Amino acid sequence: VTGGAQRPLVALLTDYGPGSEYVGALHLAVAGRCPAAERVDLAHDVPPGDVTWGALLLAWLLPLAPPSATVAVVDPGVGTERRGVALGCAGGRSLVGPDNGLLVPAARALGVEHAVELRSEEHRIHPVPPTFHGLGVFAPAGAHLACGGALADLGPSLDAASLVEPPAPTARAEPGRVETAVVARDRFGNLALAGGAADLAGAGLEPGAPVAVTVAGRRHRARLGRVFADVSAGGLLVHVDSHGLIAIAVNGGSAAGRLGAGPGARVVLDTQQA
Amino acid sequence: VTGGAQRPLVALLTDYGPGSEYVGALHLAVAGRCPAAERVDLAHDVPPGDVTWGALLLAWLLPLAPPSATVAVVDPGVGTERRGVALGCAGGRSLVGPDNGLLVPAARALGVEHAVELRSEEHRIHPVPPTFHGLGVFAPAGAHLACGGALADLGPSLDAASLVEPPAPTARAEPGRVETAVVARDRFGNLALAGGAADLAGAGLEPGAPVAVTVAGRRHRARLGRVFADVSAGGLLVHVDSHGLIAIAVNGGSAAGRLGAGPGARVVLDTQQA
Amino acid sequence: VTGGAQRPLVALLTDYGPGSEYVGALHLAVAGRCPAAERVDLAHDVPPGDVTWGALLLAWLLPLAPPSATVAVVDPGVGTERRGVALGCAGGRSLVGPDNGLLVPAARALGVEHAVELRSEEHRIHPVPPTFHGLGVFAPAGAHLACGGALADLGPSLDAASLVEPPAPTARAEPGRVETAVVARDRFGNLALAGGAADLAGAGLEPGAPVAVTVAGRRHRARLGRVFADVSAGGLLVHVDSHGLIAIAVNGGSAAGRLGAGPGARVVLDTQQA
Repeated sequence: VTGGAQRPLVALLTDYGPGSEYVGALHLAVAGRCPAAERVDLAHDVPPGDVTWGALLLAWLLPLAPPSATVAVVDPGVGTERRGVALGCAGGRSLVGPDNGLLVPAARALGVEHAVELRSEEHRIHPVPPTFHGLGVFAPAGAHLACGGALADLGPSLDAASLVEPPAPTARAEPGRVETAVVARDRFGNLALAGGAADLAGAGLEPGAPVAVTVAGRRHRARLGRVFADVSAGGLLVHVDSHGLIAIAVNGGSAAGRLGAGPGARVVLDTQQA
Repeated sequence: VTGGAQRPLVALLTDYGPGSEYVGALHLAVAGRCPAAERVDLAHDVPPGDVTWGALLLAWLLPLAPPSATVAVVDPGVGTERRGVALGCAGGRSLVGPDNGLLVPAARALGVEHAVELRSEEHRIHPVPPTFHGLGVFAPAGAHLACGGALADLGPSLDAASLVEPPAPTARAEPGRVETAVVARDRFGNLALAGGAADLAGAGLEPGAPVAVTVAGRRHRARLGRVFADVSAGGLLVHVDSHGLIAIAVNGGSAAGRLGAGPGARVVLDTQQA
Repeated sequence: VTGGAQRPLVALLTDYGPGSEYVGALHLAVAGRCPAAERVDLAHDVPPGDVTWGALLLAWLLPLAPPSATVAVVDPGVGTERRGVALGCAGGRSLVGPDNGLLVPAARALGVEHAVELRSEEHRIHPVPPTFHGLGVFAPAGAHLACGGALADLGPSLDAASLVEPPAPTARAEPGRVETAVVARDRFGNLALAGGAADLAGAGLEPGAPVAVTVAGRRHRARLGRVFADVSAGGLLVHVDSHGLIAIAVNGGSAAGRLGAGPGARVVLDTQQA
């Protein structure tokens, strides 16, 4: 049994919205310029302009990807002086998008081998729409790379150390306590928090332990576990989710609804008094 | 004119949400393990945890599918002792997913030829995320089957009679009357009900007949028809929809809005007094 | 570097909703009948029944498409006497859908070479669902064309001049003033208006100029520009968007939220008094 030869692959992540015409336009631009390429939608429901969450998703998804060119666009600064960049990484993976931090965590984790600024007029769709560089600049660059084109064709090299650093939400752990914040909610009402297993360990919070979740001035009883069924139906679970982030869930329900909290809310996890 | 050789095909149905990173992760897992496969999104807007509706959709969609491996994940019990299964069916179609009833109506309609429990550690992505078996277990199994791998590679055979039965919403028909319930609403506000053409026939309700729809204690005048234009603009239509289910629609409007009803609401259809 | 041979391509635009089973059914119908075809989702979030917006999107997207068959379905009149049509256009592009104006602006812009009414029983999926011609009629026709089938196989020729004209939202420009209306909002809260660059020019409104936006009886200060950063954070921008339409945006925010306006709202743009 063989999976067949790898075709060129273009992966797309944006905040354009599922099923939107902006996503459709990217697909057409890629299909027209690299007809051999498979196209994969990584995510398009990133909240508008949420570079932080887009960067976390890319860092989670890219290690799952075969050799590919990823076009990522969460670009509230489109049309300003921010650069467009393409990053060639280890394992035949490249990333294309705005230089606003979006690509950096994923690219660093893979290992950046070559970085360029997108300057080539040849690899653009003209006229470039002033508010839609995804179509005019990033998709054509991704198609070029997917079809085997050289990174150097896209523009001059740049120093990877000069890339804009991403906003980096972090947790602060001390014995018995983690201070953190909600970075995303999904459609199940699960809340993803800044920080991961290391922060829980740093606080000495152990699987199976009771833990208190304080958010918006209210304190809720929860339990640290691995799966939803580690708490009873309707119970509150703190766990490390599939993205590797600390997360709050309700078994069979919505943590966002239960806690009345969403992205940006500050959260304290601490040892729950009996 | 020829359609070309059939490529391997993986179809995906989940409650992960359109455009979500969970769907993107499934696509990457398949693209990495069976690069030759086409990937088709069957539906990703199944309400969270709604196994009943997911099962109805699969039973409707699978007969439309060419030979393929379908990965279906509506899995509120992920991480419990519920089994993961793969079902080989007639016509070169296989289904992979949790053993919670989701796959059963579609698989039985096609004809189950061989069933296995997903136990092979080889055909998983490690570490398997405790709350995301779609990525760790089901997608790799589907990719294996799509690329021509044997069902027996995935785990030990099981007796198809031991599969968990799906929740089966049913209608009760008697002369002049059908008692049923809403099982889904779509974005047009159409309400799909338990039951089909046989139940309407069993009640003696005939196309063209006036019918009363009682929901939430209120009785509404409607007409039994085939197409929206069988009632005047804004009128209430009862028909058999494209899924084969009894459905309520408003010509040019939203039945859900008009009736103030959604999934779970009990509905009585009966002969409308003049 | 070569992009590889062009595969057949089927593009899909509907108001079925992202991730819905209706979209999944179209994909299966195409995959089963033209397995060699690439499938591209152009947009599925067209508001239910909004033929006007669907037609504008098609006219914007089709010039970006390589040779392809586009299946477009925004079809509130499904099941009435409205015709189904297929339009062969210049550049190897064809369009399939209801004869309600949806296809006309895109097709005319490309140049219609041959038009037929969809009558062939052979190129349908039987039984045709009375409320879902996308599946029963349009997708099979698109698959036929994508795989190289002749337009004439689908039914008798018709006179392109007999096609139903689309609803055509227009702007009225006079010196210093444009009267128009909102035709769409996207997930960023950007509002697209009827009319384009010619209307702004006709009114003598120049990039960089202050302009007043009056909507719902309230007058707001804005500036005519090209990119969001042409106004300060939170400022109101009037520009020509990537669709070529006049649009209102807020730099870093939602114009729809700020103005309390959505599709259908009447808007006046005029010279802002200092």
